Amino acid sequence: MGPELARLIGLLARLPGLGPASARRAALRLLTRKDTLMTPLETALRDAAAAVRPCGVCGNLDSADPCSICADPRRDQALVCVVEGVADLWALERAGAHRGSYHVLGGSLSAIGGTGPDDLNLPALLRRVAAGVVREAIIATGATVDGQATAHWLTERLKPLGVAVSRVAHGVPVGGELERLDDGTLAAAMRARRPF
Amino acid sequence: MGPELARLIGLLARLPGLGPASARRAALRLLTRKDTLMTPLETALRDAAAAVRPCGVCGNLDSADPCSICADPRRDQALVCVVEGVADLWALERAGAHRGSYHVLGGSLSAIGGTGPDDLNLPALLRRVAAGVVREAIIATGATVDGQATAHWLTERLKPLGVAVSRVAHGVPVGGELERLDDGTLAAAMRARRPF
Repeated sequence: MGPELARLIGLLARLPGLGPASARRAALRLLTRKDTLMTPLETALRDAAAAVRPCGVCGNLDSADPCSICADPRRDQALVCVVEGVADLWALERAGAHRGSYHVLGGSLSAIGGTGPDDLNLPALLRRVAAGVVREAIIATGATVDGQATAHWLTERLKPLGVAVSRVAHGVPVGGELERLDDGTLAAAMRARRPF
Repeated sequence: MGPELARLIGLLARLPGLGPASARRAALRLLTRKDTLMTPLETALRDAAAAVRPCGVCGNLDSADPCSICADPRRDQALVCVVEGVADLWALERAGAHRGSYHVLGGSLSAIGGTGPDDLNLPALLRRVAAGVVREAIIATGATVDGQATAHWLTERLKPLGVAVSRVAHGVPVGGELERLDDGTLAAAMRARRPF
């Protein structure tokens, strides 16, 4: 197939969701659609690599800095939702679940993953707090061991600064069947029960 | 996220094996690995688009023309395995299952897909036959309705030209369990039984 094609397949196989077999199929699809897919993808990669960078305020990825969310006057900039990654921010935006701003930590505390406090984008959040623009921090780190540890660590740092700290609720997913849920989720849903 | 990132995700989602969610994950992976993945992928797309083309002899995709298989003197160029697509050629090469040359039809006859005889790369195969370099054609089109129709159509065209025509065997896949196989495969395996 030649070194150029082998190299393309090798790089495609490193994308999440693509293994060696699907990378080969993707390369064939690209080569049979040079003008409508392959060249546009090459251009899009170059443009995005040049334009997209982390927002200096919140860490969101955008071609504008501050990002379109931090720059939006219709959003409550004092209500900051703290997430582990940009993918979490995107999920909340798709759901239309949050009308404030965000802060992207860039990961969670993880002893196994070797991620410590210095690896997370906390200083930028502390700057926002020091500037007096943060009223409440909604901690939306994952409901994993690492996410929970990160949430506690953040709470300890933010509360002394006079920031109201809340945590997204854990419980039965909407549409979820109880019999298929794990014990931890069921226990959390029982503990957090509310009057009906 | 900005138009550049949205466009990149949209194009990635058009690759086979990637949906919207995995395209978003792939874009994030690329943006967090600009130097080691994103820029190399951009370069690989450009290089492959410029270098890779169908072999003028057999239709294989390669940056050399004739391709490395057609140019290989250690391979039996008179034993031509006819496949529907380059992916089939790659599969046979990975298996080391064929030491001759190939001919890539570029599809199969399909009434539903609108693929007729004029859409397939038969003229190049007939030129190879006319040049007297084809001793046997092994038809390895798929064991689908379209693949079988294509195999019959090819046989009718090649036999009158004095080419020996064979068909890859159909039967129980090696490692396959009989109870999980479809009726058609089991019937084909019974019909094609061989003395033990």
